[in-house]
Amino acid sequence: MIRLDESQYEKMVHDTDALREKWADLSTDDRLHSFLKLERAAAEDFFLTLKTDEQAELLVSLPVFERRFWLRILPPDDLADLIQEFEPELRYAMLAELDPRLGKEVAALLAYAEDQAGGLMNPRFARIRPDMQVGEALRYLRKQAHENLENLRFIYVLDRDQKLLGAVSLREIFLAPDQKLVQDIMRTNLVEANENMDQEALKQLFASHGLMAIPIVDGTGRMKGIVTADDIVDVVEEEATEDIQRMAGVEVLEAPYLKINLLSMIKKRAGWLIILFVGEMFTATAMGYFEHEIKRAVVLALFIPLIISSGGNSGSQASTLVVRAMALGEVRLRDWWKVLGREIFVGLAIGAILGSMGLLRILIWPSRETLYGEHFFLIGVTVATSLVGVVLWGSVSGSMLPFALRKCRLDPATASAPFVATLVDVSGLIIYFTMASFILRGALL
Amino acid sequence: MIRLDESQYEKMVHDTDALREKWADLSTDDRLHSFLKLERAAAEDFFLTLKTDEQAELLVSLPVFERRFWLRILPPDDLADLIQEFEPELRYAMLAELDPRLGKEVAALLAYAEDQAGGLMNPRFARIRPDMQVGEALRYLRKQAHENLENLRFIYVLDRDQKLLGAVSLREIFLAPDQKLVQDIMRTNLVEANENMDQEALKQLFASHGLMAIPIVDGTGRMKGIVTADDIVDVVEEEATEDIQRMAGVEVLEAPYLKINLLSMIKKRAGWLIILFVGEMFTATAMGYFEHEIKRAVVLALFIPLIISSGGNSGSQASTLVVRAMALGEVRLRDWWKVLGREIFVGLAIGAILGSMGLLRILIWPSRETLYGEHFFLIGVTVATSLVGVVLWGSVSGSMLPFALRKCRLDPATASAPFVATLVDVSGLIIYFTMASFILRGALL
Repeated sequence: MIRLDESQYEKMVHDTDALREKWADLSTDDRLHSFLKLERAAAEDFFLTLKTDEQAELLVSLPVFERRFWLRILPPDDLADLIQEFEPELRYAMLAELDPRLGKEVAALLAYAEDQAGGLMNPRFARIRPDMQVGEALRYLRKQAHENLENLRFIYVLDRDQKLLGAVSLREIFLAPDQKLVQDIMRTNLVEANENMDQEALKQLFASHGLMAIPIVDGTGRMKGIVTADDIVDVVEEEATEDIQRMAGVEVLEAPYLKINLLSMIKKRAGWLIILFVGEMFTATAMGYFEHEIKRAVVLALFIPLIISSGGNSGSQASTLVVRAMALGEVRLRDWWKVLGREIFVGLAIGAILGSMGLLRILIWPSRETLYGEHFFLIGVTVATSLVGVVLWGSVSGSMLPFALRKCRLDPATASAPFVATLVDVSGLIIYFTMASFILRGALL
Repeated sequence: MIRLDESQYEKMVHDTDALREKWADLSTDDRLHSFLKLERAAAEDFFLTLKTDEQAELLVSLPVFERRFWLRILPPDDLADLIQEFEPELRYAMLAELDPRLGKEVAALLAYAEDQAGGLMNPRFARIRPDMQVGEALRYLRKQAHENLENLRFIYVLDRDQKLLGAVSLREIFLAPDQKLVQDIMRTNLVEANENMDQEALKQLFASHGLMAIPIVDGTGRMKGIVTADDIVDVVEEEATEDIQRMAGVEVLEAPYLKINLLSMIKKRAGWLIILFVGEMFTATAMGYFEHEIKRAVVLALFIPLIISSGGNSGSQASTLVVRAMALGEVRLRDWWKVLGREIFVGLAIGAILGSMGLLRILIWPSRETLYGEHFFLIGVTVATSLVGVVLWGSVSGSMLPFALRKCRLDPATASAPFVATLVDVSGLIIYFTMASFILRGALL
């Protein structure tokens, strides 16, 4: 630990804050240069607050003996994330630079996928045996504390085979009389997670139970490590980012916006745009069928964008709300009929509002007769009823699509706003021209 | 703490799991009924995992003496959240049911807004004085542990005025010799936050430093409480949900999808839809200007949805990516020109892809001459160049709008996908018909 007097501390805070401020604008060389100019204490503090990819960038340029120092100040789980940033050849070189025990721990962590519980856990945790007396346990913990344990708040009780039996808090050990046995004060109703659990499920576990830490066990119940809430904060951000990108019809970028290279960026975005473009081509086909109607009443064409975009917008709203509610576990598959009922009601209500606005717009427009012809009232009615139909259909299809996708075991977030909008565009045109041919028959058509 | 033998534990887990499974489908009465049927130990476990609004719903129906028990098993910060769920009159009655000290703590927390650091913090934390010896500090902590301290991992060193001087971990106290003074082993370079800090900023602090806890101080440096990472997990989820809803053009719901009443739901959604509808009316106006062209070449109308939706989709992608990158701090205001450069490149590339697809579609369509007339090639060129222009314009305006909003100190997430799509619809039409009048002049127009 670093101890500083007040003036040193002030200066250090100033240096690191200044550097953090301009960090993003510095070149790799300048970053290394400024970093090396920091005092050791400030540099340590600064290094720990860098993102993993920034740490990696610095380490690559450092001489080996320096690099070893920086690797060693990280806990095993962060170290595993860091080493994963490097090329495979370099990874082994780095593992070799660690103390044998730490190297073994990190190598074990690297075997897990990054988004599994095992890939998030810290293999170091405080452990005691069930048949220890409280006084003995305290002395034993004090000894363990020397080995740089990240966490002493959660103490786990393991048997000789490393199977997890229970947990006890330091507070409970503090409170208990010295002769009491650990097994008599430990809690056994623990929330635990398997090492292969997906980080999304693990996140739900943290959120629903409001926990600070979850012990991770293998298939036979042997404890492998702990995941703490601070690691989950990053997971939640990451999962939200992925959902948001999918909802906008972008493949998950997997890198910050400014870092990803332009070719990958185009790939990630063009995929869905091409699919949507092909889907949207059906609008041209659909309108081909109504070309005759458009020729006789060109005025109908004027309202096409207004009508289909209203359907698209209400559909995007509905799908986004449902997809997010599913991700939070607020809406489950069997709730589909409840959602359907709500969306029919909401769709009709909003359709009625927009429909009346559309009708009014046409009826009170000063040049309505020159612009829309003598049948402007019937055109107004056509637009208004189509709006009700399209908004209703948008809300219903937008909200039901995520259920259909999940039912087929696909990601509901695939029901992105652009996807729903495209779907509703094609059907919206059909609704509009069908309405028109009913209402305007004999008048304009 | 609850101790159970194995068979009791099995049954309890089974009961609570079964109840949790069907909870969402139960009426308020049935919930109360099933809850009261649980054994006390299982009920405690179950109660602690409920969401705040579900806890509130149960408590309202319980007799006063029962309610008091359940209130007391919650830590002060959760208790404050819970009490906030009730009507103001009931809040005072509940505060009165608590022990005087706890009541005072909770009342102090209620004075903070829910999204401020003060509203998230736990006022109970372990504190020692700088001039204590380590042995003395350990005994003192052991005494504090009796008062139901949530957290002993983080121990704060305060002077007589409660001003925060430093922190020391239990591990460090464990390791130090008994006679050492606390001030000689404490860390002083702490990350701390003011009680009025917004939860969004606090979240950034947790994420960038990877911390488990942050001490909260008032304007004079007096320590008021701690916020731990588990509270931040909820904050991150909540902020992501709000961003997602804004990005879909919905006002923040502030309640789960299935819980919010239908009238509020309509209000939250109709607002933006009406604004977008009014904006989209300009498409009808814009097309009014081109009515003459449409009359002469109805075929132009067929491609309107295809062209404007492609612009809208690429605009939604660009705005969503930029808004999210801003929320994560990956993109800052001064990066606007870097983003502009990238989007021009990406927009041109994707526009070229979609444009060639559009051209090809028209050129190889079997019935191209009957459908599009003799000038089908020129129409293809019009569609293709318009696509390039519209996609480029969509990417550029979608990515720049969040910067403009932030520059005006508005929320960048207001640049929602539907908002950008509407903007691009109107301008897309103008681009399309301008292209058409250039390319088709003398041929069709």
